[in-house]
Amino acid sequence: MLYFLGYLAMKHQGLFCTFYLIVESIGEGVTEFQEGDHVLTVFTGECKTCRQCMSGKSNMCQVLGLERRGVMHSDQGTRFSINGKPVYHYCAVSSFSEYTVVHTGCAVKVSSAAPLEKICLLSCGLAAGLGAAWNVADISKGSTVVIFGLGTVGLSVAQGARIRGASQIIGVDTNPEKCDKAKDFGITEFINPNDCNEPIQQVIKRITDGGADYSFECIGDTGMITTALQSCCDGWGLTVTLGVPKVKPEVSAHYGLFLSGRTLKGSLFGGWKPKSDLPSLVDMYMNKEIQIDEFITHNLPFEEINKAFELMREGKCLRCVIHMPK
Amino acid sequence: MLYFLGYLAMKHQGLFCTFYLIVESIGEGVTEFQEGDHVLTVFTGECKTCRQCMSGKSNMCQVLGLERRGVMHSDQGTRFSINGKPVYHYCAVSSFSEYTVVHTGCAVKVSSAAPLEKICLLSCGLAAGLGAAWNVADISKGSTVVIFGLGTVGLSVAQGARIRGASQIIGVDTNPEKCDKAKDFGITEFINPNDCNEPIQQVIKRITDGGADYSFECIGDTGMITTALQSCCDGWGLTVTLGVPKVKPEVSAHYGLFLSGRTLKGSLFGGWKPKSDLPSLVDMYMNKEIQIDEFITHNLPFEEINKAFELMREGKCLRCVIHMPK
Repeated sequence: MLYFLGYLAMKHQGLFCTFYLIVESIGEGVTEFQEGDHVLTVFTGECKTCRQCMSGKSNMCQVLGLERRGVMHSDQGTRFSINGKPVYHYCAVSSFSEYTVVHTGCAVKVSSAAPLEKICLLSCGLAAGLGAAWNVADISKGSTVVIFGLGTVGLSVAQGARIRGASQIIGVDTNPEKCDKAKDFGITEFINPNDCNEPIQQVIKRITDGGADYSFECIGDTGMITTALQSCCDGWGLTVTLGVPKVKPEVSAHYGLFLSGRTLKGSLFGGWKPKSDLPSLVDMYMNKEIQIDEFITHNLPFEEINKAFELMREGKCLRCVIHMPK
Repeated sequence: MLYFLGYLAMKHQGLFCTFYLIVESIGEGVTEFQEGDHVLTVFTGECKTCRQCMSGKSNMCQVLGLERRGVMHSDQGTRFSINGKPVYHYCAVSSFSEYTVVHTGCAVKVSSAAPLEKICLLSCGLAAGLGAAWNVADISKGSTVVIFGLGTVGLSVAQGARIRGASQIIGVDTNPEKCDKAKDFGITEFINPNDCNEPIQQVIKRITDGGADYSFECIGDTGMITTALQSCCDGWGLTVTLGVPKVKPEVSAHYGLFLSGRTLKGSLFGGWKPKSDLPSLVDMYMNKEIQIDEFITHNLPFEEINKAFELMREGKCLRCVIHMPK
């Protein structure tokens, strides 16, 4: 009965872009989880046996990574259907529902003492930003950082940079309402490109004495990657791209930006191996070493999920937690 | 007399793409050199006082780097002229001549016991390749490496990879004559893309179990950078670009190559700080820890310099040392 092997059926407690559940039943062969366990579910899993998982230096699991195209790993099928038509397994978790079935490799057991309606933010954007700052860029004390796009991902990079002791954390966003909120997370200077009379990279080069040590593209606009590279200094400037572009999938930049010593690196889920690493982030939250609550600007019942999407599109929320019917 | 301050007049002994000289006289304020000193001259200098030089992690000197546009740093002038018209100071050394004047920051004092007509190769391509392997990529033992373009730069990367203990060093070149020579420098597998029935990146992914740990673009073709990225593995694949493109200056690649964990890094002169680092490479040569002689496929008198260029264009030489009239 491979069908259930390694899977968990779970009851959803709420989510928005992030996922948390309580185990309702376990499939054949599952020994890691028990009914009632609290878990975070993740869009990119960890099989712990493939070349990538075994490497100790990657979270690009070859079995449960991003290439599943909406089906379960075991039988390439789905677990939801409407009138006989499959409802695809979105992001490996199908989380906009009260109950779901996920692979054990996409479920992370966490302490039941931790409030699920807060730590669910670690399942995606918040961890993605912290990890980009810590694992991928490995920001050093006293360094200068510039962040393009101040949503939850960008502000989590800022939090990560502040915790590492960066001396200057510049946030760039065209939405002026981001300014005040940004400073709560560590942004030391807010720049709205619409208020500038010169290209934003020139402004940044001037205030960082030749360019920042690190720049982060958190918008999902490949066109901004050149700007992010230009905002970095020669020699050791590192640009990390976290965004998934909606429009142009090609990254392009003048070769001279690389020849003069810059590096361009990608970051998926901040380099975290979800099962190995997320429990330690939960511990950090419980020890008040990282902020999560401040990112939750809204809470809504499941019936109002479309309002949550509107808030997101209008740039009026950071994270909205969706609460399922009791 | 700022005109001469910090400059050396030197007698050229020979070169091709690489430069070595003996100090003939020194300018005002120069204390580091004496008449008769043996020096290597370099296209990118080291002032030891700018932000980049002081950082300890960059060779992108802001004073004597690549932005000089054919003039001396002190007075923005040249030292050669024909019929009153300036002959620009090519690559900071103007080395196709018996005598030249260079900034002390572009001259590296070396042991007079080292044969200048061999170690001159460390002034450019050979050091560039070794440094890309050691300083920029930091190749680890047992890793897999693929090198696109097997000129002196590419073969120096191969030598660097072999010395680091890479287990598989794949060389890619469309010139079949490179095959035998390549193996002398550490290439374990030679692939001519013209002999393949599938895209070269697919061949490489197959023989490296999913992609190499490191790939190096040593052709100077920005179009090959995507191929180099695709030839690397997910998770930690690192592509280093060393080439200066003759045609298209834009690097472009699908964002997914980065999101899946790849890094693109540029390398100029292999990250070596010339004055600080080249003397140790000379020592390594004298201790037989690195090969240089094998790269010198030709020696020609200055009168036949155009023949040397032809050999290079036709891919028939690795390095040709030009000997000045005695």
